[in-house]
Amino acid sequence: MAQAVTDEMNSIQNPLLRLYFFYVAILSLKMLLMSVLTGLQRFKNNAFANPEDAEPRKLKVKTNEDVERVRRAHLNDLENITVFFIVSYVYLMTNPSITLATTLFRVYTIARIAHTLVYAVVVIPQPARALSWAVGYFITIFMAVKSIMHFLA
Amino acid sequence: MAQAVTDEMNSIQNPLLRLYFFYVAILSLKMLLMSVLTGLQRFKNNAFANPEDAEPRKLKVKTNEDVERVRRAHLNDLENITVFFIVSYVYLMTNPSITLATTLFRVYTIARIAHTLVYAVVVIPQPARALSWAVGYFITIFMAVKSIMHFLA
Amino acid sequence: MAQAVTDEMNSIQNPLLRLYFFYVAILSLKMLLMSVLTGLQRFKNNAFANPEDAEPRKLKVKTNEDVERVRRAHLNDLENITVFFIVSYVYLMTNPSITLATTLFRVYTIARIAHTLVYAVVVIPQPARALSWAVGYFITIFMAVKSIMHFLA
Repeated sequence: MAQAVTDEMNSIQNPLLRLYFFYVAILSLKMLLMSVLTGLQRFKNNAFANPEDAEPRKLKVKTNEDVERVRRAHLNDLENITVFFIVSYVYLMTNPSITLATTLFRVYTIARIAHTLVYAVVVIPQPARALSWAVGYFITIFMAVKSIMHFLA
Repeated sequence: MAQAVTDEMNSIQNPLLRLYFFYVAILSLKMLLMSVLTGLQRFKNNAFANPEDAEPRKLKVKTNEDVERVRRAHLNDLENITVFFIVSYVYLMTNPSITLATTLFRVYTIARIAHTLVYAVVVIPQPARALSWAVGYFITIFMAVKSIMHFLA
Repeated sequence: MAQAVTDEMNSIQNPLLRLYFFYVAILSLKMLLMSVLTGLQRFKNNAFANPEDAEPRKLKVKTNEDVERVRRAHLNDLENITVFFIVSYVYLMTNPSITLATTLFRVYTIARIAHTLVYAVVVIPQPARALSWAVGYFITIFMAVKSIMHFLA
């Protein structure tokens, strides 16, 4: 583990950390709103997953494609954004240029919001979803590989 | 990004960080125990998801409502607590009052434990689950919004 | 909250933190590759989850056991590795011996890679999957309990 690192990187005055805090809070809020989207689709389609939700409304438990679509988008967030939360922090500890880091955080955040919009809000034909997913995915892969190489040394 | 921040916030001697470490470890343990709950329901109901689990017991792969209920509670934890882990850390970096932060962490942790109990251990009619979920949800939303406003500046 | 803690623990020069950054980046990359595995199985088996993916190929949406197996492995990662990301950081803040911490991170990472291999790449009869899962699980439980006891004081 040879590279020089300084305590300054781990300081809250570090603009990279402030960047992290801001975009992570935005992405967290975006993920939290998926629960509202799911709830709206459940009520709209009378599709509840639990008997204690369905029976008081004289309904049976059922699945609905519009609900499942939002849930797939939400699970995709869990698979992707949760890893980004962690690996983007590690990436910042490799002391990247602030311009590159800022660009990556901005593009990632826009791509994930676009992914949700085209997947679960207004369904748009492919490759809209594939592209927005891929942009986020390859940013995260890049950060993971850079981090591994940096901290391997 | 105008607010004054100090390195003291990111120090492990910071009582806010010790608070974070304690409640995050409690919530992690709670989440880990969901796997035990799932396993218990799988054995009790002979409901396994993989052929290599079912066939040595002369069973077929099947789903079971009691297993699915625990898995829904577990997924709900992933959707909510994982985001809380990250956004509550960011919130602490906004330098909140220790009294408010302590209260939010305590109430959040109690609400999520209650959510599991009424969802997956002893099923209690609504609004028990909705309320326990909503308490945790709005605490996390509050933290996300506060963090965005703080680090936007 | 009585134990002595020092700022050195939270310093990026701390070898425990460098250990954390390295293994977390490896585990993040492993998790990200699950999406590639899922995609490969979807194309191989013509099993797509969304009409906008299936219809341009003149297919209907369907589920496939090989796809579902990879998705179960991926969900198992989300349930386990996501919690490890957080609780292992908290554990490092309890100032463990570097030898023990290094061993735990190495064994955990190997166990989770083995779990993916025997679950979703080359299916191997039990107890291969159960054992690899249990090794990771009990390391995470150990870290959670140690952290709770440390920060409870």
